[in-house]
Amino acid sequence: MEAQKGGFTLPGEAGYEELTLKMAKKWGADVIRDSDGTVLSEKILKAGYGIYSTICIIRDHNEWAKKNINKLQQTFLCTPPAVAGGEEMCTAGMSIGLLDSFFKEQFRVNDSEDSFKYWQVYDRTTNVLLDKKDWIYNKDDESVIILTAIPWHKYTVNFMVYRVWEEISMYNHTTNHWDKEHLMPIEPRYPETQEYMLSWMKDWCEAHPDTTVVRFTSMFYNFAWIWGSSERNRNLFSDWGSYDYTVSVPALDAFAEKYGYFMTAEDFINKGRLHVTHMPPDSRKRDWMDFINDFVISFGKKLIDIVHSYGKQAYVFYDDSWVGIEPYNGRFREFGFDGLIKCVFSGFEARLCAGVEVPVHELRLHPYLFPVGLGGAPTFMDGGTPALEAKRFWNNVRRALLREPVERIGLGGYLHLVENYPDFSDYIEKTAEEFRLIKRIHRSGKPYVIGTKAAVLHTWGRYRSWTLSGHFHETSMHDLIHINEALSGLPIEVSFISFEDVKNGALNDVDVVINAGYAGSAWSGAEAWRDEEIVSLLTKWVYEGGTYLGVNEPSAVEGYDTFFRMAHVLGVDKDTGERVCHGRWAFHSDGEGILPEGVCIRPKENLYLTDGMTKVLLADGDKPLLTLHECGRGKGIYMAGFEVNSINTRMLYQLIRYAGGEGITGKYMTDNPYTECAYYPESRQLVIINNSGEEQEAAVETEEGVKKVVLESYETRFVTL
Amino acid sequence: MEAQKGGFTLPGEAGYEELTLKMAKKWGADVIRDSDGTVLSEKILKAGYGIYSTICIIRDHNEWAKKNINKLQQTFLCTPPAVAGGEEMCTAGMSIGLLDSFFKEQFRVNDSEDSFKYWQVYDRTTNVLLDKKDWIYNKDDESVIILTAIPWHKYTVNFMVYRVWEEISMYNHTTNHWDKEHLMPIEPRYPETQEYMLSWMKDWCEAHPDTTVVRFTSMFYNFAWIWGSSERNRNLFSDWGSYDYTVSVPALDAFAEKYGYFMTAEDFINKGRLHVTHMPPDSRKRDWMDFINDFVISFGKKLIDIVHSYGKQAYVFYDDSWVGIEPYNGRFREFGFDGLIKCVFSGFEARLCAGVEVPVHELRLHPYLFPVGLGGAPTFMDGGTPALEAKRFWNNVRRALLREPVERIGLGGYLHLVENYPDFSDYIEKTAEEFRLIKRIHRSGKPYVIGTKAAVLHTWGRYRSWTLSGHFHETSMHDLIHINEALSGLPIEVSFISFEDVKNGALNDVDVVINAGYAGSAWSGAEAWRDEEIVSLLTKWVYEGGTYLGVNEPSAVEGYDTFFRMAHVLGVDKDTGERVCHGRWAFHSDGEGILPEGVCIRPKENLYLTDGMTKVLLADGDKPLLTLHECGRGKGIYMAGFEVNSINTRMLYQLIRYAGGEGITGKYMTDNPYTECAYYPESRQLVIINNSGEEQEAAVETEEGVKKVVLESYETRFVTL
Repeated sequence: MEAQKGGFTLPGEAGYEELTLKMAKKWGADVIRDSDGTVLSEKILKAGYGIYSTICIIRDHNEWAKKNINKLQQTFLCTPPAVAGGEEMCTAGMSIGLLDSFFKEQFRVNDSEDSFKYWQVYDRTTNVLLDKKDWIYNKDDESVIILTAIPWHKYTVNFMVYRVWEEISMYNHTTNHWDKEHLMPIEPRYPETQEYMLSWMKDWCEAHPDTTVVRFTSMFYNFAWIWGSSERNRNLFSDWGSYDYTVSVPALDAFAEKYGYFMTAEDFINKGRLHVTHMPPDSRKRDWMDFINDFVISFGKKLIDIVHSYGKQAYVFYDDSWVGIEPYNGRFREFGFDGLIKCVFSGFEARLCAGVEVPVHELRLHPYLFPVGLGGAPTFMDGGTPALEAKRFWNNVRRALLREPVERIGLGGYLHLVENYPDFSDYIEKTAEEFRLIKRIHRSGKPYVIGTKAAVLHTWGRYRSWTLSGHFHETSMHDLIHINEALSGLPIEVSFISFEDVKNGALNDVDVVINAGYAGSAWSGAEAWRDEEIVSLLTKWVYEGGTYLGVNEPSAVEGYDTFFRMAHVLGVDKDTGERVCHGRWAFHSDGEGILPEGVCIRPKENLYLTDGMTKVLLADGDKPLLTLHECGRGKGIYMAGFEVNSINTRMLYQLIRYAGGEGITGKYMTDNPYTECAYYPESRQLVIINNSGEEQEAAVETEEGVKKVVLESYETRFVTL
Repeated sequence: MEAQKGGFTLPGEAGYEELTLKMAKKWGADVIRDSDGTVLSEKILKAGYGIYSTICIIRDHNEWAKKNINKLQQTFLCTPPAVAGGEEMCTAGMSIGLLDSFFKEQFRVNDSEDSFKYWQVYDRTTNVLLDKKDWIYNKDDESVIILTAIPWHKYTVNFMVYRVWEEISMYNHTTNHWDKEHLMPIEPRYPETQEYMLSWMKDWCEAHPDTTVVRFTSMFYNFAWIWGSSERNRNLFSDWGSYDYTVSVPALDAFAEKYGYFMTAEDFINKGRLHVTHMPPDSRKRDWMDFINDFVISFGKKLIDIVHSYGKQAYVFYDDSWVGIEPYNGRFREFGFDGLIKCVFSGFEARLCAGVEVPVHELRLHPYLFPVGLGGAPTFMDGGTPALEAKRFWNNVRRALLREPVERIGLGGYLHLVENYPDFSDYIEKTAEEFRLIKRIHRSGKPYVIGTKAAVLHTWGRYRSWTLSGHFHETSMHDLIHINEALSGLPIEVSFISFEDVKNGALNDVDVVINAGYAGSAWSGAEAWRDEEIVSLLTKWVYEGGTYLGVNEPSAVEGYDTFFRMAHVLGVDKDTGERVCHGRWAFHSDGEGILPEGVCIRPKENLYLTDGMTKVLLADGDKPLLTLHECGRGKGIYMAGFEVNSINTRMLYQLIRYAGGEGITGKYMTDNPYTECAYYPESRQLVIINNSGEEQEAAVETEEGVKKVVLESYETRFVTL
């Protein structure tokens, strides 16, 4: 079975025309792109390939920005708490330097009259907002002087800044020690900015007749990335899903007009913590997100329409300035994008991309063609092993693509770097072939899934399907990203549901509900668990046959007889310290017949069985790690934590099968946890993959008997039944 | 230097008269006692020794108890949560068996009319108390039937029981597989019981003319010890400081009359958690404790007066049925006791005993003369090493006795068991001699202490000086017991203060405040930290020179900008999950010049430096373990945890010296952390001890130059300057 060429985006490079065309042929590219730092020459542009050009609509406009310095993007910041000294200091006035702890190249105080009404000073000892007359702003040294400080209380200032260095550019600049002008992000909320951007977009289309696809990077608002003044603490805050950088005076004013109430600085600052995606949003934050999304769609669409009017396609990059786009909130199609590109390290990111309603999904594979990778480790330079990296990343992504297809893959960076790495070039050729085969198989029909349907339950529901907030390595402290990664390649139908969905009947379509996170987080559910209806609906559903699978601190909230609200279903709870004098049920642990060999779960303190009927499948001494509790016709399953690896992924799969009454083994699964397979009944294609770096044997029971294979490290084997 | 004989209580044993008198001579006993299970013969009683007899006023009265079965001691119990099934079950009435999960030999349902008004049924899904008309009691099978259960909610019943087996006796009975009548505890709240007890006490005194000391074991109420029906979960609850067993219908009624409000069952049950000493009491619990204490004093005094009227002394045992005695609440002298006996494993227990205002303090040393120890390990039987055990326990206690003296020591159990262990007999002889020497040195004047004064700050303050709740091994999960144990032998003046004390000026007399515990516990302080005055007073005091030394989760409470309310002083905070996207201060750790070599602190997750000025003295990779933060003229010191051992004890000592500006070394401290010393300026006595099982060298700087010694394992060396 062989697939046609195509579905591959190649980064071209002027000065390397021959190489560009050679690699385009080798890898089966149909599109050639530029990258940050490369251009395409006439020879490449006219070689008959689709041409894909990146633009970033909010930076690269420094000339205009300098003339409109009051129309830059903004944000709220909060000074670190400062302690008021004794009477003497307080009488003299307590001074707080606003930017002392921030990276001054990134921020400039916005002390415009319009902005000033949003500033706030808090007594953080008492949580009290100071009256405006109790403090003054000293423009000379950019400080706030508190006139009525109470001795030994601590104070913070919520203030507004312009952002004077676009963050992705700032990161690349400082990482590569560039010596060039800082790019300033401009704010599209101002009518003048909009006028400028629309006109620029037209001019750009005029000037790029060869471009067939305009790749927006991305729309207007980067995720928040706040830098500090000290090299010992440069990264003060970053969250891929945060809305802090969508703040501006005109946005705040327009919000108040539309929603009938003012967002305050404190709504964003949240006692200095800001609101991370990992914690549940309050209703004000949700309003703000809707408000920003509405603007990004309405103005974004105007730019896309221009692109379309020139006969070009518009793709958007699902990273960087993606905030406010929200591909999973049901409105994404309003933009009119023709494609979505996602840079991927992991399987869950492939599913995140594949699940968006848009004609073309494209994955930007790793490694990028750069000398060093994201963490600063060598890639295309001495000490780098780009072919091995490519294998490992493809290994992460491949199992997800076997479940849900995308239309395109591609690379980014400096093509000339591959010249010294022929093994990399060969591997990408092979990968591209595999990708096209998988895509073709999908076209004949969907892969087999087991009958048991799983739903991941958390505060965001569908809004944050598959992802939490950013890449795996940024969120690896959360159990749920490990679970999503495991699920991304399993033959299980998975949905992401919110607590609101549960109330609207979502449990009717589901056999296993997974709820994984630490107490208070959006992933565990926090305050949502106070809702008696949620608890009762899930309890009823379990007693009638469902399985509630909780991980870490599922359903945890203070104020009830148990810390886990679903403890009566799980048969396990966590003692928050009040049960330190209570005895504990003794148990023997035995997971035989349910768990694979070699499962590993990190112990968690203070867990206890609420019930003598709880079966412990895995334990660390007297600490239960994995338990099973029968409830009526259903089950509660508890895991102290979950770390993704081949064995634990198999464990999750077996538990879900077991919960659904399908038995822990069956047709179309391999007998070796280091291998997996996908089966496509329509095309009778069985694809068996080796997820390990070692040779593996695998046997798969099929309707045509048992298929046995020996797979090389990371091999993909296509078998026709 | 040699001390006289005396100050030693020997357990005599009838049938071993010769041995009794021989050992009395060898160990220098001046008093001979009986024990649970032994009697003294005429020969012993008349041998010229003081005679000390144990009584337990609430048990050993089964004849009377059987005739007054409605005057037994009582308590509230709560059934485990039961889930209401579907409509069908709820319509039929949901039945909950009251005693199903409890040890039926310990409890009998108190369904008397008087008791019934205190019963409660709770919907634990919604935290709602059911109306009395919504449930009925079925006397036949001792169940409660809920008539209005809501499907899938969970319910519990708070009900009342008589306790039909006195718990200490029950424990000894079941442990030793006795086959004799169960002793029932009688409730002194009933006038008839009081009348009986007073008359019994008189009769007893008449019948025991040779007894010089009556040892009460102890007064009326045992700490709560609830047993379960399953052998897999026999110990449901035990807390040395709990008041659950002080509950009875007459007590509850009398309380309402005195305080003007009714205590409810839920005030004790607390959602099934009960109220452990480790959590802060609410005001109702405090009222109840005062109320019980008042009764125990007023009726207890009548019994003591009888003892005195017969020319005998009355001692009380500070364990078992000690609840309601409260030797540290300022009223203890009202009892009129002549002595207090404490059974000790640890140094903090010696200090706990020594610190009570009473003429005679006596320590009951371990091991007891029993075949097996508390944990069931062999002592005076094959495999036991009682001499070594005695050394180790004495080693724990000795350093505390060097700081604060007691008048007497003694043993308990079956004397004949020592016959086969001459090394034990010899070691006790040596111990008794050491004890007498130490007591004599104390008489000449107090030991030297450093100028820096420490206070332990927690919710209970002086009420729970030295102890938390029970023995070390029962509370070893709490950092504070480790700290108390370390402090018990250090040359530092230590006080125990409450948050109320802080408001009343307690900080004026203190240089270092230690606050150690997990969030929400009585030891950390929980809700007390919401009080702005506490935070401000401590902040001011630190900025003016004090040191706040926090351990684990000091000052932790939710709802403010930092989880640790004193984070601005400590320079460290714990992220409860909301700062998961915040960066962290990078640091190098260096404790040189402050910490001894070999300090070991268990890592704690999610700690972060709030401030670049925080110095990390000890770390585990990127996890800070021990930090120092200068604040004005004072300091914040943070420890992630504290486990007592010789090195960590030295660390604590050095940190307190450092905080007080005394330098980490100086006069009258050894140069070897495995050794310690005490110096008594008036008598010019230096006592150097080896706390280890190996030979140690030690040098001590004194006003007479450096004294160097080589000490055998556990040796005590007396040096006169």
